Amino acid sequence: MVEAVELKQKLFKITKDKRFEFTMMAVIVFSALVIGIHTFEIDPVLETILNYVDNLITIIFVIEITVRIMAEKKPLDFFKDGWNIFDFVIVAVSLVPIDGNYANVARLIRIFRMLRLITLLPELKIIIGALYKSASSIGYVLILMFIIFYVFAVIGTILFESAPSGLWSDVGVALLTLFRVMTFEDWTDVMYETMEIYPISWIYYLIFIFLTTFTFLNMIIGIILDTLNEEHKALEAESKDEDRILLESVLEHNKIMESKIDSLEALIRQKLT
Amino acid sequence: MVEAVELKQKLFKITKDKRFEFTMMAVIVFSALVIGIHTFEIDPVLETILNYVDNLITIIFVIEITVRIMAEKKPLDFFKDGWNIFDFVIVAVSLVPIDGNYANVARLIRIFRMLRLITLLPELKIIIGALYKSASSIGYVLILMFIIFYVFAVIGTILFESAPSGLWSDVGVALLTLFRVMTFEDWTDVMYETMEIYPISWIYYLIFIFLTTFTFLNMIIGIILDTLNEEHKALEAESKDEDRILLESVLEHNKIMESKIDSLEALIRQKLT
Amino acid sequence: MVEAVELKQKLFKITKDKRFEFTMMAVIVFSALVIGIHTFEIDPVLETILNYVDNLITIIFVIEITVRIMAEKKPLDFFKDGWNIFDFVIVAVSLVPIDGNYANVARLIRIFRMLRLITLLPELKIIIGALYKSASSIGYVLILMFIIFYVFAVIGTILFESAPSGLWSDVGVALLTLFRVMTFEDWTDVMYETMEIYPISWIYYLIFIFLTTFTFLNMIIGIILDTLNEEHKALEAESKDEDRILLESVLEHNKIMESKIDSLEALIRQKLT
Amino acid sequence: MVEAVELKQKLFKITKDKRFEFTMMAVIVFSALVIGIHTFEIDPVLETILNYVDNLITIIFVIEITVRIMAEKKPLDFFKDGWNIFDFVIVAVSLVPIDGNYANVARLIRIFRMLRLITLLPELKIIIGALYKSASSIGYVLILMFIIFYVFAVIGTILFESAPSGLWSDVGVALLTLFRVMTFEDWTDVMYETMEIYPISWIYYLIFIFLTTFTFLNMIIGIILDTLNEEHKALEAESKDEDRILLESVLEHNKIMESKIDSLEALIRQKLT
Repeated sequence: MVEAVELKQKLFKITKDKRFEFTMMAVIVFSALVIGIHTFEIDPVLETILNYVDNLITIIFVIEITVRIMAEKKPLDFFKDGWNIFDFVIVAVSLVPIDGNYANVARLIRIFRMLRLITLLPELKIIIGALYKSASSIGYVLILMFIIFYVFAVIGTILFESAPSGLWSDVGVALLTLFRVMTFEDWTDVMYETMEIYPISWIYYLIFIFLTTFTFLNMIIGIILDTLNEEHKALEAESKDEDRILLESVLEHNKIMESKIDSLEALIRQKLT
Repeated sequence: MVEAVELKQKLFKITKDKRFEFTMMAVIVFSALVIGIHTFEIDPVLETILNYVDNLITIIFVIEITVRIMAEKKPLDFFKDGWNIFDFVIVAVSLVPIDGNYANVARLIRIFRMLRLITLLPELKIIIGALYKSASSIGYVLILMFIIFYVFAVIGTILFESAPSGLWSDVGVALLTLFRVMTFEDWTDVMYETMEIYPISWIYYLIFIFLTTFTFLNMIIGIILDTLNEEHKALEAESKDEDRILLESVLEHNKIMESKIDSLEALIRQKLT
Repeated sequence: MVEAVELKQKLFKITKDKRFEFTMMAVIVFSALVIGIHTFEIDPVLETILNYVDNLITIIFVIEITVRIMAEKKPLDFFKDGWNIFDFVIVAVSLVPIDGNYANVARLIRIFRMLRLITLLPELKIIIGALYKSASSIGYVLILMFIIFYVFAVIGTILFESAPSGLWSDVGVALLTLFRVMTFEDWTDVMYETMEIYPISWIYYLIFIFLTTFTFLNMIIGIILDTLNEEHKALEAESKDEDRILLESVLEHNKIMESKIDSLEALIRQKLT
Repeated sequence: MVEAVELKQKLFKITKDKRFEFTMMAVIVFSALVIGIHTFEIDPVLETILNYVDNLITIIFVIEITVRIMAEKKPLDFFKDGWNIFDFVIVAVSLVPIDGNYANVARLIRIFRMLRLITLLPELKIIIGALYKSASSIGYVLILMFIIFYVFAVIGTILFESAPSGLWSDVGVALLTLFRVMTFEDWTDVMYETMEIYPISWIYYLIFIFLTTFTFLNMIIGIILDTLNEEHKALEAESKDEDRILLESVLEHNKIMESKIDSLEALIRQKLT
């Protein structure tokens, strides 16, 4: 038992070692490079070597995860951290034996290992956290955006259904076409086509572009202001406290002095009467 | 009479019930889905079913509006809120009997029911309010933008009237062409064509792009600063008050002490002389 | 003499009258509309009428300027305001008799009258002022931008001179091509062409896009921060003063009290010894 | 020796002279113009003249650098400033004799002289410094961006390898294609092609566009907030100090007064008992 605990501590030390982390980062980057090289047309010999390397990398990942699980006091504690589950799933999935016919699926799964870089670099975790936070703050704007898109898509299918390009044949295609218009990607081609059906249909596009651009701009401004306000309040609160403490201490001293003067007066009155 | 009042209160409770609101939201989303399915080529049987569902949804909407009107103390109070009028018009218009030949018009009207989601989600109302506010703050910039567009459109029609693409044939078309240039949508195609008439006409486009981009950027920055300033002042005013109160209280105490010391001195002089 | 002064005062009153300003705005907008209608193919009869209207508008403008000059105490004072000179030049130029062969030039000159709306709407003057201010604050960034453009244009002409599209034939054309790339307008068409000469030339475009986008972004951020800082300092300075005055008054009172206590002590010592 | 020192001081004065700096700026701008003129098809006679001018400019640059090195107390001190090394390298490289066959290389090298404008204009140095600073603050976001690009590029090559346009043939090409999609440059052409292989592949593009646009937006917002925060803290710190000093002085005076009142009380007690 004692030995097991000692082993755990040793393993824990290893997993927190900078050299261990750098090695794992190097393995991940190398693994991504290997998958990248696979996409070029390569020599069969190199192909065979790369496959061996691939398997070696898988083994290294399995060992790493095993070490990190064993380093925990209770192995199941490992799964209390979301990022650990993320790591585990990525490694576990790449272990599933896949038939040679589905080599592409195997490669698809393996490239997701690269996302483990995020787990290893704390700075990236922070950025992801910030992204997630600002993403959740724009939830309702996205709902509003979707309502605008859906209403315009239905209107588009009703008005321009007969357009020969088929860009308005059903509400799904129309949503994609509107997204294209929103990115200004050859949007005039779309417009000039429907203007042959309804010459006045430029109004439809102008209103759509104004509405979405304006909503989008306000979303960005909203994110900026939200973050600014939060930081500003934190800063204010902090700086205020110091001034407040000083001011309150001045006020307290004033009150002490007043009572002292009062008692002094009482003393004089008493002594001199 | 008493029963009528009781009924009103019951109805009022129902309209404020979360379950009532969720049901209505589900009906609206479902209604939007039904209209969306209509845009695909569908089986005649399904078509018939969807039409029945459509009518059912209309009936539900009518009942809902009726309940909400009756729940008010005075039915006409219902129309004092702009959003209520908005709801009422959307439901009322979809009741107008439309000939089968104008099925598209009927569908067009029905999709606007989806906008009722905005009425039901208070968060969306707030966003719409914020959009409206920042929209009104850029009114004059839009006037300036339109002046720039109009002046350039007239210049464009005078200079490039003979362009074979017909993009500059009159001031209306030219305005649309300029909007296209502003979104950078194949703007060089427009420019290369007119450069065959006037090789130096790239100056026209560069000046236009610089002017509009710069005005647009300043509009965005203006919105950011306006909103920031407003919030900042509100925050300052609030935080200032607390400090001010403390400071003024200190000053008051100081004055009290001074007068106390003065009276003490007077006392001593009086007693000891 | 007295009558002349009275006339001046009357004229001055008229020029400051809201109705006078609204009339002039209506005339300007109407004048812009007339020029706009000219760009459509119109009936010769209407054409003749519009020409009469045009002349009438010119006469109205001349009268307006004359009234405003005469309303000044010294007529030459009128030219002390830049916007007045702007008005005068626009009206004066449109008086130059232009041969029928140069009808287009006459129309070009007349559309600039629309810019007089800026002179009449004080809000637009403020916006123009703000634009001018932020434009001057980005002067050096524009110089940097131009250096980047020029260096890349020369490199482009040296490397891609032989491109069949002629987009890199000399430094002038290359500058225009780079501006096109910066607006992302079919920039891959430009790149794919030169990649046939130098397959590695995508690096040239990536570096250029990164440099210019990054410089552009920093310019925008710079404008935002500059304006924010300025307003912030103004606000701080103002709010600080009030607190400072209060604090200094507290300190002063403290010093007065100290000296009073000192003199009290001296009094007691003197009386009791 | 004394003469040498005097010469140094004279040279130092010259290098700091505004007229010297303006002359050098004019020479650099002129040098850039000469290279620009070279890109046009020009008369052989003008060509010969320009070549002489080019050599003259090189000589002027060599003299200028020599003077600036000699003006330093120790010539090697000149190389302690990074910008000086930058100047020196640019001038030195343009001295390397290049065979007539490599005239283009010579011209390429000479255009970099234009970058010396940055060394001469302190304002540009400041802007470059600010750019460098904000560039380093987005390092990790760029890593995240690259991970997203690389993962999507590998997925793209696996799924769309057979696309006839060859836009997804290997991971390098796919990265370039994704950059194109991110700039919205004819991205629907890319999408419509792969939608013929996998009709559902629009999901791939939507996710990619959302991820990169959102990350990019957050990067910009991050830069804005970083710079704002820094300036804000500097401002706060400064303004706080003044208030703090006043407040602390008030508190100190309060304490002095208290002890004075205490000693006064002690005095009275002592005298009157």
